[in-house]
Amino acid sequence: MDRADQVRVNPEKLRAAFMKPNAKLLQLDGLNPVFDMDGSLSWGAVIDASPDNDLLLLGIDGDVPHFAELTGAGDAGPAANPALWQMLGNLRPNEAAIYATARSLVDWHARHRFCAQCGNPTGSRKGGWARLCGKDEGGCGAEHFPRTDPVTIMLSECQGKVLLGRQPRFPPKRFSALAGFVEPGESIEGAVARELWEEAGIKVRDVRYVASQPWPFPSSLMIACTSVTDDPALTLDEDEIEEAAWFSLDEVKAAMAGDASAPFIAPPPFAIAYNLLKHWVDEQER
Amino acid sequence: MDRADQVRVNPEKLRAAFMKPNAKLLQLDGLNPVFDMDGSLSWGAVIDASPDNDLLLLGIDGDVPHFAELTGAGDAGPAANPALWQMLGNLRPNEAAIYATARSLVDWHARHRFCAQCGNPTGSRKGGWARLCGKDEGGCGAEHFPRTDPVTIMLSECQGKVLLGRQPRFPPKRFSALAGFVEPGESIEGAVARELWEEAGIKVRDVRYVASQPWPFPSSLMIACTSVTDDPALTLDEDEIEEAAWFSLDEVKAAMAGDASAPFIAPPPFAIAYNLLKHWVDEQER
Repeated sequence: MDRADQVRVNPEKLRAAFMKPNAKLLQLDGLNPVFDMDGSLSWGAVIDASPDNDLLLLGIDGDVPHFAELTGAGDAGPAANPALWQMLGNLRPNEAAIYATARSLVDWHARHRFCAQCGNPTGSRKGGWARLCGKDEGGCGAEHFPRTDPVTIMLSECQGKVLLGRQPRFPPKRFSALAGFVEPGESIEGAVARELWEEAGIKVRDVRYVASQPWPFPSSLMIACTSVTDDPALTLDEDEIEEAAWFSLDEVKAAMAGDASAPFIAPPPFAIAYNLLKHWVDEQER
Repeated sequence: MDRADQVRVNPEKLRAAFMKPNAKLLQLDGLNPVFDMDGSLSWGAVIDASPDNDLLLLGIDGDVPHFAELTGAGDAGPAANPALWQMLGNLRPNEAAIYATARSLVDWHARHRFCAQCGNPTGSRKGGWARLCGKDEGGCGAEHFPRTDPVTIMLSECQGKVLLGRQPRFPPKRFSALAGFVEPGESIEGAVARELWEEAGIKVRDVRYVASQPWPFPSSLMIACTSVTDDPALTLDEDEIEEAAWFSLDEVKAAMAGDASAPFIAPPPFAIAYNLLKHWVDEQER
């Protein structure tokens, strides 16, 4: 789907897109998706949107404009419903991207109704891709854009084994890659090295980028990397990580295959941590 | 320098760091750095900070805490002073990272004095790494964290030539890599493909990550990538790009060497676009 950035910024084109009889509206239950019988995202007609809500232009597919409704639904943290996550994992990649965009932006509007610079109310602009603190309404004129927060998620390898950890909120036996936000003034590589030092007490080298994936809980860009360390001694930050350990190739393969005898439960396939582990396994077996 | 995240969140440790007689204070002129005679960043003593300003804990180097003052200086756009940029380019990498952190955060505090969720005033917390909308002050309790905005900057290669473009604000003859923000719901690779389609009208494949660098004007994380296209026909978005062209290896090398006969002026060495071009030249010559 074309994100149609030139339509967003053109009020006439935006109105024409909204008026098209074939224009679609993404069905949401709060911030959660509504699924059709076949497990794909459910769409209604734009004409059925509430006149009280602003609309978000998700994009244009062929000649069909796709919108979502800015309902004011916000989210304070990750969605923890395993059945929902299973459904999300089965979405086609383009549908997952559309839902990620809608979820992040509906939530962003709900939690950014006021101007951070002057405190006045702001309003949606550019088809939902900005908020303006309007001077005509007594504001300062600042324009605000949706956040995308880069997060590094990383493996470290030592003597043929790979480091995984448990956050206190994980389900029993689940281990995954460590992760943390990239801070102002850091590179991706610097953030990976800092996080592994802070959370696990290891000094790493040879940080390598593997892949990236949007993660709309609420607005992260997950950036997956590998790294290498020479000393496996761990010093955990127990506020962040309740347990961490080095796992062998065979142990990781058993966990990813879902073996009951595996020493841990792997992250689910739609999480980038799963693909990062798969990348590591493939590298070992090359 | 250790960013000392465990000190940020511990008011007692933070106070002890502030009280250390050797604690340093970064000298800033608004958002710009102050340089010592040898071209390095200038530092004073924390004791000389204004009691009216909150302090930002930049980190701890050995046993020396380093702070910056949250002066309220904000920035609306890129710094355009060539002499300053020359000086910045000569900083050692660790000093450049410290300055980037300080500039991004001083600016972020200046432009985020109010809660985006409820409009009430917020206050600095966690050694300057968060702002709180305090319930005791009538706020909603939301905690806000500094932004880091991921930006892709990319080359595309076609038939042995590389695509560079000019933004209207560039100095005469300067060409550089195209760039754009990663949007909610996108991967890095998806953002590269979308930007090249929107700005240059080309369809690309084989997007590859090369390197990343913080860019504190005001708070970007630059993510440099290469890509390949099979059709060199360009359709420019003239609001963003006033001119774009394919350049040969010899033309790029002449520009990077500063030859007067080169067909364009290359980006400066401290910009990630320069390193991206250098990576491309090295790949061609391998």
